[in-house]
Amino acid sequence: MNSDGKSSPTRRNFLTAACGLIAAAGADFGVSAAISIAGPSPAIADSEPFWGEHQGGILTRAQTHTYFASFDLISTNRQEVIGLLRDWTAATARMSGGQTAPGSDSGEALDLPPARLTVTFGFGSGIFMKDGQDRYGLAAHRPEALVDLPRFNGDQLVEAHTGGDVSIQACADDPQVAFHAVRQLARIGYGVAQLRWTQTGFLPQTGPNQTPRNLMGFKDGSNNPPTDDPKAMQQFVWVGGEGPDWMRGGSYLVVRRIRIALEHWDRMSVEFQEQTVGRKKYSGAPLTGKNEFDPPDLDAVDKDGNSIIPDNAHIRLAAAGSNDGVRILRRPYSYNDGVNFTSERWPPWRQGMEYDAGLLFVSYQRDPRTGFIKIFDGISKLDMLNQFATHTGGGLFACPPGVSADEYIGQRLFATA
Amino acid sequence: MNSDGKSSPTRRNFLTAACGLIAAAGADFGVSAAISIAGPSPAIADSEPFWGEHQGGILTRAQTHTYFASFDLISTNRQEVIGLLRDWTAATARMSGGQTAPGSDSGEALDLPPARLTVTFGFGSGIFMKDGQDRYGLAAHRPEALVDLPRFNGDQLVEAHTGGDVSIQACADDPQVAFHAVRQLARIGYGVAQLRWTQTGFLPQTGPNQTPRNLMGFKDGSNNPPTDDPKAMQQFVWVGGEGPDWMRGGSYLVVRRIRIALEHWDRMSVEFQEQTVGRKKYSGAPLTGKNEFDPPDLDAVDKDGNSIIPDNAHIRLAAAGSNDGVRILRRPYSYNDGVNFTSERWPPWRQGMEYDAGLLFVSYQRDPRTGFIKIFDGISKLDMLNQFATHTGGGLFACPPGVSADEYIGQRLFATA
Repeated sequence: MNSDGKSSPTRRNFLTAACGLIAAAGADFGVSAAISIAGPSPAIADSEPFWGEHQGGILTRAQTHTYFASFDLISTNRQEVIGLLRDWTAATARMSGGQTAPGSDSGEALDLPPARLTVTFGFGSGIFMKDGQDRYGLAAHRPEALVDLPRFNGDQLVEAHTGGDVSIQACADDPQVAFHAVRQLARIGYGVAQLRWTQTGFLPQTGPNQTPRNLMGFKDGSNNPPTDDPKAMQQFVWVGGEGPDWMRGGSYLVVRRIRIALEHWDRMSVEFQEQTVGRKKYSGAPLTGKNEFDPPDLDAVDKDGNSIIPDNAHIRLAAAGSNDGVRILRRPYSYNDGVNFTSERWPPWRQGMEYDAGLLFVSYQRDPRTGFIKIFDGISKLDMLNQFATHTGGGLFACPPGVSADEYIGQRLFATA
Repeated sequence: MNSDGKSSPTRRNFLTAACGLIAAAGADFGVSAAISIAGPSPAIADSEPFWGEHQGGILTRAQTHTYFASFDLISTNRQEVIGLLRDWTAATARMSGGQTAPGSDSGEALDLPPARLTVTFGFGSGIFMKDGQDRYGLAAHRPEALVDLPRFNGDQLVEAHTGGDVSIQACADDPQVAFHAVRQLARIGYGVAQLRWTQTGFLPQTGPNQTPRNLMGFKDGSNNPPTDDPKAMQQFVWVGGEGPDWMRGGSYLVVRRIRIALEHWDRMSVEFQEQTVGRKKYSGAPLTGKNEFDPPDLDAVDKDGNSIIPDNAHIRLAAAGSNDGVRILRRPYSYNDGVNFTSERWPPWRQGMEYDAGLLFVSYQRDPRTGFIKIFDGISKLDMLNQFATHTGGGLFACPPGVSADEYIGQRLFATA
C-alpha cells in the first residue's frame, strides 16, 4: 500500500509492469524500495508528503538539488490538459514515495530512495490567455495578482530562459531523483506540454540550522520569514480570501535566473563586498550587529552621520522596513552552467565574463504586486549588487493549493470554469 | 597542523588572513573546521589524501559530483607556468583538507567539510607545442602516447567543449565544494591560464557497493577493472617503464561529453534497450547471465545460432575480449545542461532533440592508443548505442603522477626539460 491507498509496484519491480519480461520473477522484485536502500545518509531515505493542504516544495526544508522546468502547452484541447494534470498528479504522488512513474519509466532512479522529492506545479499566464486566445475557457479565472511582470531596470531576459504556461519545480536531495521526476513528467506530457526551458540548481550540504552560502560567499536567507510560524506564512505566503477560490492556500512563484559576474566579484575586497550586501561575510551578521540573526538597525549611523548599512546596500533595499512591511519567502539555489563568454550584460562588465553561474532565485508570496515586484523595483534601481547581478530569465506562476487523494493539481480551477 | 605539516588557517578563519578585519576576534575563529560540521552525512566530512604516489580522483571511489575545467595557457613565460603549478599544488593541498585557498578565497565553502574533494591535473598537447611554438621548452618531452585524438565516426565535437592545455577535474560529495575548488584555481591562474570550457557532472547517492545508473537507466561501470587490485591498475591504468620518467605512476585521461537523445531512448522498449546495451536493465546482468557481475558469454548463441549478446551490442564492442584484452578504467558522471533545441546531431535524429544531457565519460588508461582509441574505434563504427549518443566535446590529457610534500604537480616534467 502506498500513500494514495492503492497497492502499486515499487521502483524495483517496474519492469514487470512495463513489459512483462520478468513477470515470472515477480517474487524477487516485490520488495519495498525502502528496504533495499543502503545510501550514505539516512536522511536521504526520507520522503516528503505529497497530498495535503499546500503543495510541497514551498515550506519544505530546502533539498540540496533542484530541477526547474517550464512548459508550453501545445494542445488546445481542454480535456487533454485536464488529463495531463491528472496524470502528472498520479505520477508525482508515486515518485514522491520513491516509486516509478506510470508507463515506461526511464529507470535511472531505480533503487534510489525518495530523497525527499517534492514537485511544485504552477500556472503561467498562458494557460488563461495566449496570443489573444482563451484556449481552455479559463480566461475569466485569471487571478488579478497574476500580472505580467514589468520590465525592471537592468533586465536582460533571454527568451530561451523566460516564461512558460506551466512550471514544474522538482527538488530532491539527489540530483538524479530530481532529473528523473521532470523527465517522467515531460514524457507523460508528450503532445500536450512541451519543454520550454529548464534550470538546475544546488545548495551545499549544510546542517539543518545553518544558512547556506550562495556563490558570492554570503549566507543567503537569514532574514526569511519563519516557515514554522503559520501566522507569518498566512500573512506573507499563502493566498487567502482576497484571491479566487481556486488559489486559496496556494502561492505565487517568482523565479529569476540571475547570472553573477563572479570573476568581478572575486576581485573586490571583502570589506567592499560586505558594504554591498550589508552583512558581514563570515558571520552573516548585519553590519550593525554581531550575530547572523540580529535584526539590522537601518537607522544606525556612524560618527559622521552616515548610515552604517549603506543606503544602497542589498539588505536595506530588501528589508521589510523599506517595503511597507512586506516580506517574501525566498528559496534560492545556486546554479552553475559552466562558462559562457557571451554575456547578456551591458558594458562595462560585458568584457571578461566567464562564469555562467549565479543564483536561481525562487520566491513565494501571497501577492507578487506587493511582494517581489514592489521589493525588486527598488532593488533594480539602487542596489550596489546590480553591478554584479544580471537577471537573464524567469517567470511568474500561480501555484495552486495542495490536493487531497481524490483530486488533481489545479482541479479547482477547472471545476469552476 | 595539516597534512603538509604546517599550521594553516582553516576555512573558518580565512578572513583573518584575507584582510585582517576581524583579527581581534581570532580566538572565536580558531576552531578546526571538522569540529563545526553538522551535515546530514558523516561521510561527507571525510577528506581524501592529496600527497601520494598517484593523483587523487583516479582510483578514488567516485564522489557524487564533479566539475571538470579545461584551461588555455595564455602566458608564454615558462617560469610563470611553473609558478602557477606551484600555487595550484599548494592551494589544492589546502582545499583537499577543507581549508580555504590562499589569497581572497571567495568563501562559498566556508563551514563546509572537505566532502572528499580531489583535484586531478592533466596536460594537453598544447603545453608541449601549440601553433608550431614550443612555448615552454617541453616539446621534446611530449609522450608518444599523448597523440592527437583521431576523428571518430560520428564525432560532432564542438570547439567550445573541446581541447585545452591543462585540465583540472574537481570531484567532491558536494557540488559547491567542487565548484569552489575550480573557481579558486581559476582565480589563482588569472593572467597565466584562462578557462576554456567546463562541465559539471553528478552521480546518484548509491550505497558503496552499488553500481550507479546513468541517465539511460542502466548500471554503468559493472565491468570496470578492480581498483583494489594493484596489479590490474599497474597493467591498465598507471604508466610504467614504457613512458617517459615524468609520467611514471601517472595516467592518460580521455574525457568525452556525450549528449544522449533521451527523448528518443525513452520511446524504445526495454527489450530493445537491453539488446542495445547487452545487459538487463533492472539487474545489470549480461544477457547471458543472471547477476550483474556474471562475466558476459560473448560466444553464447540461441537455438537459431544467433549471438545472445548481439554483434553490435555495446558491451560486446567494449569488452576486453573484443579488444585484445585491453581494459580502461571508466569513471563516468551524468551531466544535465538543461534543454537545447539546437542539436549537434546528424539526421534523422536532429529533429525533436530536447535534452542537453547525457554522459561525461571519464576514463583513465596506461596508453590511449591501446585504450580508448582502440576500443572506441570499433564502438564508433558499430555500436547500436550510437543511434542515441553523440560525442560533442572532450580531450586527451596526460595526468602526471602524484606529488610528495616538497613537489609541485608536473615538477618532474619541468625538472627534466
